[in-house]
Amino acid sequence: MTGEELRSTTVHDWKSKHVLVTGGASFIGSHLVDALVGRGARVRVVDNLSSGRRENIADHIASGAVEFREADLLRSDVVDAATAGTDVVFHIAADHGGRGYIDLHQVACSTNLVLDGMVFRSAERAGAEKVVFASSGCVYPEHLQNDPGELLYLTEGLVAPPYAADNLYGWAKLMGELTLRAYCAEGRLAAASVRYFTAYGPRCPESHAVMAMIARAMTGQDPFEIWGTGEQVRNWTHVQDIVEGTIRAAEEIHDGTAVNIGTMERTSVVECAREVLAYMGREARFVFDPSKPTGPYNRVSDLTLCRELLGWEPEIDFKTGLRSTIDWYLEAHDESEVRRTLEFALTERRHA
Amino acid sequence: MTGEELRSTTVHDWKSKHVLVTGGASFIGSHLVDALVGRGARVRVVDNLSSGRRENIADHIASGAVEFREADLLRSDVVDAATAGTDVVFHIAADHGGRGYIDLHQVACSTNLVLDGMVFRSAERAGAEKVVFASSGCVYPEHLQNDPGELLYLTEGLVAPPYAADNLYGWAKLMGELTLRAYCAEGRLAAASVRYFTAYGPRCPESHAVMAMIARAMTGQDPFEIWGTGEQVRNWTHVQDIVEGTIRAAEEIHDGTAVNIGTMERTSVVECAREVLAYMGREARFVFDPSKPTGPYNRVSDLTLCRELLGWEPEIDFKTGLRSTIDWYLEAHDESEVRRTLEFALTERRHA
Ligand SMILES: NC(=O)c1ccc[n+]([C@@H]2O[C@H](COP(=O)([O-])OP(=O)(O)OC[C@H]3O[C@@H](n4cnc5c(N)ncnc54)[C@H](O)[C@@H]3O)[C@@H](O)[C@H]2O)c1
Ligand SMILES: NC(=O)c1ccc[n+]([C@@H]2O[C@H](COP(=O)([O-])OP(=O)(O)OC[C@H]3O[C@@H](n4cnc5c(N)ncnc54)[C@H](O)[C@@H]3O)[C@@H](O)[C@H]2O)c1
Repeated sequence: MTGEELRSTTVHDWKSKHVLVTGGASFIGSHLVDALVGRGARVRVVDNLSSGRRENIADHIASGAVEFREADLLRSDVVDAATAGTDVVFHIAADHGGRGYIDLHQVACSTNLVLDGMVFRSAERAGAEKVVFASSGCVYPEHLQNDPGELLYLTEGLVAPPYAADNLYGWAKLMGELTLRAYCAEGRLAAASVRYFTAYGPRCPESHAVMAMIARAMTGQDPFEIWGTGEQVRNWTHVQDIVEGTIRAAEEIHDGTAVNIGTMERTSVVECAREVLAYMGREARFVFDPSKPTGPYNRVSDLTLCRELLGWEPEIDFKTGLRSTIDWYLEAHDESEVRRTLEFALTERRHA
Repeated sequence: MTGEELRSTTVHDWKSKHVLVTGGASFIGSHLVDALVGRGARVRVVDNLSSGRRENIADHIASGAVEFREADLLRSDVVDAATAGTDVVFHIAADHGGRGYIDLHQVACSTNLVLDGMVFRSAERAGAEKVVFASSGCVYPEHLQNDPGELLYLTEGLVAPPYAADNLYGWAKLMGELTLRAYCAEGRLAAASVRYFTAYGPRCPESHAVMAMIARAMTGQDPFEIWGTGEQVRNWTHVQDIVEGTIRAAEEIHDGTAVNIGTMERTSVVECAREVLAYMGREARFVFDPSKPTGPYNRVSDLTLCRELLGWEPEIDFKTGLRSTIDWYLEAHDESEVRRTLEFALTERRHA
């Protein structure tokens, strides 16, 4: 494809589009499916349900809006059948979990190197016009992100050689980005990579810090356990914003550019915990466990490129998003069940 | 596996071993097959012949010493059938060529991320005790290798975060190494990575500089074309040494350590060209084309770790190895055929 042809693959009318969402039964994937179905796209979801849940998209399956296949995309026959006949591929599937999972399951995360390359290769061969890749803040150099007191906003250009990604999980995301850029440079695919920052919202499992805190508060944990010193700064980003940014990237980016999707709101883990307890009307003493996996101490995205390329930025402020997420969690969960399964859910891929 | 168990997987008696050589029909792979057959191993070769040649191992196939399957290891059914029943996997297959290929075919080289991960995963599931991975000098940081005047010997520890590998080809090799180390750390496989430096010898195709020079000299090229300034320094390493080092690594390394296999002899491209012309009794004027792909200007391995871990180092000096390689090339090739196909062979994966 020439540059002109790449530009002409701009997707705006989703109604005419056949879309594959790999990992579409996941937390983020299922919200993306909601949004694509809402725009009238014909959606196929392929997910092995290793961490995704059928119930996340059960209504769409029942209504016929989504064609669902439970299958392992690490098998070449599965991936080729998955991409067949699709115009746009949202590659959301990954062997992935929260911080505990990423730190403690390196071999598992390394399989994303396989999965990502297989999906891209198969998408090209199927004649897809565009691939949108769920990348991550984990591609940013770890050594920049150590000082929670620094007013640091990660700009996309900080990911440049020499590279220093966050665990094999982050390396796989980086390799996915570089591979897609090569596909674009060789005129073989149009593509966009979206670097998600710490997402939260309905359907998010407890392996992610915010949800773990909500679960701890729900079960009345006291002392209330916090991994690390609690000073870790994050820009928790609501899944609705993640999804909106992803679809806009599909519409606006063609040359494989990677763009941050994350807020510029800086919140420390301990501030988040206080907010969770306050909204849930609980009180508890904090105990800190710095021996636990924490990830970097300062990870917040810059948004200049996002605004420039997508004409948009995340809109949901943390307090509002957190409160509605707590409301959802309390509604959707049973306290004794959470109590029973929480410890396991913290570092594994299962849900409480 | 515990550390003790890993150590106990030491391979010394090859006679009892079922060995898979992926890419075993290639230049290096086929010499490795020769050596393993010589040691009495039962060898299976799986190769899609994308750059490998059946004739490289034809005698072993005919004698029944090697079970050969022409098949694409990027297919999951193929890779699983390949690893089934094997004790040791030498993973030599790669989408790979000479410098021109690596620089100009990034998407193709990125498929090694898929291939390597599939082979490792499948080897573990098949219960193999060890994987030996053909890595490369391309994992070393490019920015260290710019000054041909510097007396630089690349020590293994220079490959450390932040990383700066050489093209997607080099990144894939690095990810392969890191993945294997994770398998070892999690006690799932024993492994060794061998970082090959610029190999040459019989069966080497013309996409590699030495062979291109021999081909140019054979066809009487004058002016004699040299890519780059000719000052690039390499440690050309004879394929017999590459193979010996690989087998010793299989015997001695269990924890995924990566070791250099390359000489410490420093030879510039122009010195190499002079030597080729002199031995072949040709004279020619040199023309230099710095616009052509050259790779780094100074790439020579250190051997401290190799000596320490393998109790051995490469033994064939460049002049001796080069001369016997020229003898082989002249014997094996037809001048008019070389003339017809050389330009294409320089940047692609085919042979002249
Ligand atoms: N949640 C975050 O904060 C965050 C941040 C950065 C990036 N991401 C990325 O966003 C994507 C979605 O993340 P999520 O938080 O919703 O988590 P997730 O781990 O639940 O999503 C991955 C989905 O892929 C599916 N999957 C995994 N391996 C598969 C395979 N071999 N075949 C078929 N399906 C497979 C899982 O069942 C799951 O539905 C992932 O790519 C993740 O790496 C998430
Ligand atoms: N030649 C060198 O100087 C050098 C230096 C460093 C590393 N290496 C590595 O050593 C190994 C052997 O290199 P070589 O020079 O002999 O080159 P090569 O490229 O000919 O070897 C690769 C072999 O793998 C086979 N292959 C490729 N893709 C395959 C697939 N999908 N399924 C099955 N087979 C497949 C090819 O047909 C070929 O036989 C490669 O891994 C290469 O990256 C070589």
